[in-house]
Amino acid sequence: LTEEKIDEFRENFLALHAYDQARFYMKVGPDIRRTMYHFLSPEEMAEIFEALELDDEEVQGFIKEMDPTYAANMLSYMYTDDVVDVLNELDKADRDQFLKLMDEETAEEVTELLGYEKHTAGSLMTTEYVSVQENSTVRSAMNVLRREAPDAETIYYIFVVDENHRLTGVLSLRDLIVADEDALIRDIMNNRVVYAKVTDDQEKIAQIFKDYNFLAFPVVDDNLVLQGIITVDDIIDVIDEEASDDYSKLAGISDIDDIDAGPFKAARQRLPWLVMLLFLGMLTATLMGQFESTLEKVALLAVFIPLISGTSGNSGTQALAVVVRGIATGEIDEKSKLKMIFREMGTGLITGLACGLIVVLVVFLWKHSMMIGLLVGTAIFCSIFVATLAGSFIPLLIHKLGIDPAVASGPFITTLNDITSILIYLGLATLLLGQL
Amino acid sequence: LTEEKIDEFRENFLALHAYDQARFYMKVGPDIRRTMYHFLSPEEMAEIFEALELDDEEVQGFIKEMDPTYAANMLSYMYTDDVVDVLNELDKADRDQFLKLMDEETAEEVTELLGYEKHTAGSLMTTEYVSVQENSTVRSAMNVLRREAPDAETIYYIFVVDENHRLTGVLSLRDLIVADEDALIRDIMNNRVVYAKVTDDQEKIAQIFKDYNFLAFPVVDDNLVLQGIITVDDIIDVIDEEASDDYSKLAGISDIDDIDAGPFKAARQRLPWLVMLLFLGMLTATLMGQFESTLEKVALLAVFIPLISGTSGNSGTQALAVVVRGIATGEIDEKSKLKMIFREMGTGLITGLACGLIVVLVVFLWKHSMMIGLLVGTAIFCSIFVATLAGSFIPLLIHKLGIDPAVASGPFITTLNDITSILIYLGLATLLLGQL
Repeated sequence: LTEEKIDEFRENFLALHAYDQARFYMKVGPDIRRTMYHFLSPEEMAEIFEALELDDEEVQGFIKEMDPTYAANMLSYMYTDDVVDVLNELDKADRDQFLKLMDEETAEEVTELLGYEKHTAGSLMTTEYVSVQENSTVRSAMNVLRREAPDAETIYYIFVVDENHRLTGVLSLRDLIVADEDALIRDIMNNRVVYAKVTDDQEKIAQIFKDYNFLAFPVVDDNLVLQGIITVDDIIDVIDEEASDDYSKLAGISDIDDIDAGPFKAARQRLPWLVMLLFLGMLTATLMGQFESTLEKVALLAVFIPLISGTSGNSGTQALAVVVRGIATGEIDEKSKLKMIFREMGTGLITGLACGLIVVLVVFLWKHSMMIGLLVGTAIFCSIFVATLAGSFIPLLIHKLGIDPAVASGPFITTLNDITSILIYLGLATLLLGQL
Repeated sequence: LTEEKIDEFRENFLALHAYDQARFYMKVGPDIRRTMYHFLSPEEMAEIFEALELDDEEVQGFIKEMDPTYAANMLSYMYTDDVVDVLNELDKADRDQFLKLMDEETAEEVTELLGYEKHTAGSLMTTEYVSVQENSTVRSAMNVLRREAPDAETIYYIFVVDENHRLTGVLSLRDLIVADEDALIRDIMNNRVVYAKVTDDQEKIAQIFKDYNFLAFPVVDDNLVLQGIITVDDIIDVIDEEASDDYSKLAGISDIDDIDAGPFKAARQRLPWLVMLLFLGMLTATLMGQFESTLEKVALLAVFIPLISGTSGNSGTQALAVVVRGIATGEIDEKSKLKMIFREMGTGLITGLACGLIVVLVVFLWKHSMMIGLLVGTAIFCSIFVATLAGSFIPLLIHKLGIDPAVASGPFITTLNDITSILIYLGLATLLLGQL
């Protein structure tokens, strides 16, 4: 990229979709990026930034490469929800500097948005929406729309407000287009409008989008005054993030998204879980130590330990996964919790019985000892029952206490079930020792 | 609901959002549903059906409650992609009967859509889109739009075609609204249009929606002839489904969505995995049987088995989760696969070393035996390294073979790692037996 090529670059580059521009921007080195700041206006750069994954550490580096005035200008052209994402990646001093350099009105709106807690509707919403008064006509609403179209994040929903800017209805552009030009907005709007409060959790918002198939969604304060809107593209990111979060918890890992991290960073993300579970595993070893004399007498017993603890771990994880997802999707609510526990008790009994019988049979055929077969089979039956119950009961209990049930991660439940299954097995074995 | 209340019911019910109507419809019994078929027109019922989760067995029951002509009429009013979902739940005879009773044009379109394989763009798309010729004016395009608005699934994108119905561009309603009425579509359209082929996998489509933030997206055949569109609400369901699928595989469970299933159904879903893993666990027991004499000599060895196999299981699952999600989101591609394996080797070394050292120290302090400490520590180090490598290498290999990497489920990898970690541990112990 040289000075003479500026026109050629602009022509080819600006014809690309913003996402492809963003990919190019991410791939090139800092030198070419600096030339790009020179070749492209802050407004053009704003479109690239809106196509980036903004909740990423790299963004901080990009912003610092730019001239502060250029960066502040770019931020002024971006949708306020995206500006919030960028500023959240910077430290406080930089954030304040940019807010001072930015266009005053935008800076004020952004400051307000920055005040909302993470993962709430307030922190997700943007203030660039189209609103009309309920007593205006379709014609005047269309004019508002044309005027605001270049700046609004979506023009496909028009939000209707009263003189105090309280939300009273909603209208799709589709309704507006097929309506008579002289009709009053009040008469054609939908007044059963679904909305969220600024403090609502993002998981709740995502569920509403999934249920109602909205493209955008209004957010109000306690007095029903319209504060902003949330658009479906932001919600797709939330759905992805929540699913990824449940998934990582099931795998016992803090942050799954960072594919590019080096081995040290990856190890740092995984070690806290591993070490915590290691100490829990030591507890298992300590408890097993109590049975050392039993194990000394019948060494064959040890051979079945991984089978029993593995099976109990598997059934516990299955129950855990069903319950955690059920809570996350809202399918398990207060009323169905008790039903769920009874269901899991039944499931534990059935799967335990089936696996127990298989084991009795196989061990008998293999070791020709009915005693060992019955012991291992009974241990499997009991362990599966207890593990299934623990896998469903613990996340429900944690949820009841107001904590995200996904913290009862897969490996945690598995290690817990290791302990109970081994206690059951070696306890039974010790009781039966005379018979073995 | 009695005959006299028909007007009152219609007034209250039709004021509800379709999703809330659908919730009511799902909650009431078959008697009230039959009255609803009487009170509501097929067109009104179609809106309720579009708000239901259509890929569900219950749908079959609902359809069978209706008079076949009423049901066929209702299907004719629905978007073709939703009709496909409903018909896919019916058996062939019923499907053919409804296709005969349906409006001929819709039936033809639906038959074509039914021919596409599941999880492809073809099976997701709808044929109710708005298209205009590239040589028409903005004014005439707006007229097409007004005419088609009541039937189209989205009017926010207008797809531009040539005389052979080949896709040549795309235009948002926003572009159209701010354009001069006499402008030619050809001159204002975006001709760098992103599209999918009918045979493309739904996961690829979901990724495009996430990257580009589209609300709708055209699907073409091999000759670039426009066949249909996919809308963002359907993609949200796909994203949810894919995430749920990865999640269930990690937990070793076939179908996680069915929260309402009774204990027998739940057990049937979980048993195939449990039993398969049980037999894999028997293999572990058989292999351990080879070390029975070692275990007989030093019973203390058995005490550390759950600790070692548990830790190796945990680190394997962590690596697996990172790689499976990385492949699913497209962040790991052909080029970065090798890099990924080296990264995981490094991560395995670091986490293995850290956990190994902790164990040496703790076991030494607890059992006052440097020998046992070194043995268990070395086994933990080797197991973590092998488990991390297996957890990343196996899904990458499976993916290379063209199979969904999620089939390398969590419990499968864990059981495999049980085997290797125990072999490592007891193998080392047998070698060192003279020293113990």
